[in-house]
Amino acid sequence: MLPMIRMDDVTENVSIDAWARVFARSPGQRNAPHESDAELIELPGSPDTYLAITIDTVAEEIRSGLYRDPYTMGWVAAMASLSDLAAVGADAMGLVVSVAVPPACDDTFIGGVARGMEEACRTLGVFVLGGDSNATPEISLTGCAVGTVPRLKVMTRLGLEPGDAVYLTGRAGAGNALGLARLTGLPDELFPEERYRPEARIAAGLLLRGRASACMDTSDGVLTTLDQLMRLNGRGFEIDCDWTRVLADDVVELAARTETPHWMMAAGPHGEFELIFGVHAAQASGLLADLEAEGVEPIRLGTVQERPALELVASTGRRTEIDMAPLRNLLDVAAHDPERYLREFRATGRASGLE
Amino acid sequence: MLPMIRMDDVTENVSIDAWARVFARSPGQRNAPHESDAELIELPGSPDTYLAITIDTVAEEIRSGLYRDPYTMGWVAAMASLSDLAAVGADAMGLVVSVAVPPACDDTFIGGVARGMEEACRTLGVFVLGGDSNATPEISLTGCAVGTVPRLKVMTRLGLEPGDAVYLTGRAGAGNALGLARLTGLPDELFPEERYRPEARIAAGLLLRGRASACMDTSDGVLTTLDQLMRLNGRGFEIDCDWTRVLADDVVELAARTETPHWMMAAGPHGEFELIFGVHAAQASGLLADLEAEGVEPIRLGTVQERPALELVASTGRRTEIDMAPLRNLLDVAAHDPERYLREFRATGRASGLE
Repeated sequence: MLPMIRMDDVTENVSIDAWARVFARSPGQRNAPHESDAELIELPGSPDTYLAITIDTVAEEIRSGLYRDPYTMGWVAAMASLSDLAAVGADAMGLVVSVAVPPACDDTFIGGVARGMEEACRTLGVFVLGGDSNATPEISLTGCAVGTVPRLKVMTRLGLEPGDAVYLTGRAGAGNALGLARLTGLPDELFPEERYRPEARIAAGLLLRGRASACMDTSDGVLTTLDQLMRLNGRGFEIDCDWTRVLADDVVELAARTETPHWMMAAGPHGEFELIFGVHAAQASGLLADLEAEGVEPIRLGTVQERPALELVASTGRRTEIDMAPLRNLLDVAAHDPERYLREFRATGRASGLE
Repeated sequence: MLPMIRMDDVTENVSIDAWARVFARSPGQRNAPHESDAELIELPGSPDTYLAITIDTVAEEIRSGLYRDPYTMGWVAAMASLSDLAAVGADAMGLVVSVAVPPACDDTFIGGVARGMEEACRTLGVFVLGGDSNATPEISLTGCAVGTVPRLKVMTRLGLEPGDAVYLTGRAGAGNALGLARLTGLPDELFPEERYRPEARIAAGLLLRGRASACMDTSDGVLTTLDQLMRLNGRGFEIDCDWTRVLADDVVELAARTETPHWMMAAGPHGEFELIFGVHAAQASGLLADLEAEGVEPIRLGTVQERPALELVASTGRRTEIDMAPLRNLLDVAAHDPERYLREFRATGRASGLE
């Protein structure tokens, strides 16, 4: 008998479900909890359109010291919710922001946060539409992005079918590289924070909608994203585990310098804003050509399989089935002790089949 | 020569302007900063409709101990952004929420927050559409509400004309009563927290849109709202200062028991979610009749006057011009010392002409 693959093996899913159980669902809502990166809501008076809306707060990454530059904080706070719009293929309108900073933050700091938000928006041709500000003991930055999606082209995390090709919109791992640099106290020059300027894939999302079989962003890392797609779809993946194809060059280089196994850059929880998508085999070549014409260079990750399991396939053909749940749940257990977290992450990953 | 009445006499306006200066304005945005309670954005493909969107974080009210019951926290977090939709006359769709709570918060606490949000939404027939959760040292609850407004019926804070009648949608002061109770350490039974369940005036907003000359909610208190409308419109108000008509019965009663002057309940910074609106004299009676048919009992506050000043008119006919800027700015100065704040608030109010 197959092992049961369940959503609630992951504590974060359990927590979201606990909240969602209290809330009645809008009759105009297209998606159930977990099913899409952004909420998809019928727009009164617009029978062909869904409103796409999503909210995301950046706080833990600031408090833990992962981001030190206010520009990074603002950039990520804006991009994170815009990336959720990308993953549902929305035409993005922009976002409203809620900024909570300690009274002691000076104008330079606040200006840095604001410029990070603004330049993230300009990069994507969208706008900060408004916001709220508060004085709080710790920094917390929330973005709520809105856009629209044609109902006929709706794209969610659901819809993977066996045989679908699975792609990533660009090379990943920068989020985990920055995380590793911080957790191990690396000197700044080994992985400067300004290398972490991940861009939401709005343009790619517009090409993917109506054509990808499912889509989700990599904000929680590549393997976590695949794991969540597996749990949601009840389908698994065969993944080509030559990580040097998947990870950005400077991430691979950092791994080499620090003797960190590559899989940790794919399995870590701090991602960026690439999209992972499936596409039915017959439609893949047309979609890839359109993406490439837009300057996107998709990376083949593998194939959807019937059985809900994550199978890594080495270049030797050796297959390893991995279990991401213990790694995903580790964040709750050991996040407040960086050394212990890193040690347990490595050990748990190995025990889960990663190498 | 008249004294200059400026937006930037109020430090909160200065702070909002500093943020807004960094952000390019969307070409599809109907309102400039400060001009409306919610942002009004052209909806692509819907030439007759604006999207209304707004974000509001509740954190300071929790940290300061103003709200102790998690249900109140959730209720207010939901209602605050829905009230901004009411003030632009939007058909509300619902809201997304971002909840940040300390890891130590137990299920009872979190369940209380969630129920407060949910029951606030049910009261208004709208929905929690989705959200984000984070672990942070202090509680912070953000709501981002969305809705739509017909472009031809747009309603903002701008448009007051001399002679317009000015109304409040319901009796106010509960927010400041709770604030007073907390600042003075009153026993709970004198003003129980569960009396503070202010409701956003969505239904009233739908009747006001296209008919009120301007509208703004009282979330920062009645006199602050009038002061802000004055600065924005460059018009003033003659206000009937029989506060017993304006304040709720239990607020008047609390003032009597605690020997607090009534004006403090109108001038304090912690409001509720009534709407203050202007209406051209010729249109007032029809609008009032429609509001009353909906169960809303508007209270006449006074009249718009040409000169940008807040004039309180006593029943004796005596006129007093008040200055709200020093009171509004006091929150920055003395908020962290409740006794000093209350003492200075009283003294500053008297010096500003309030009695």
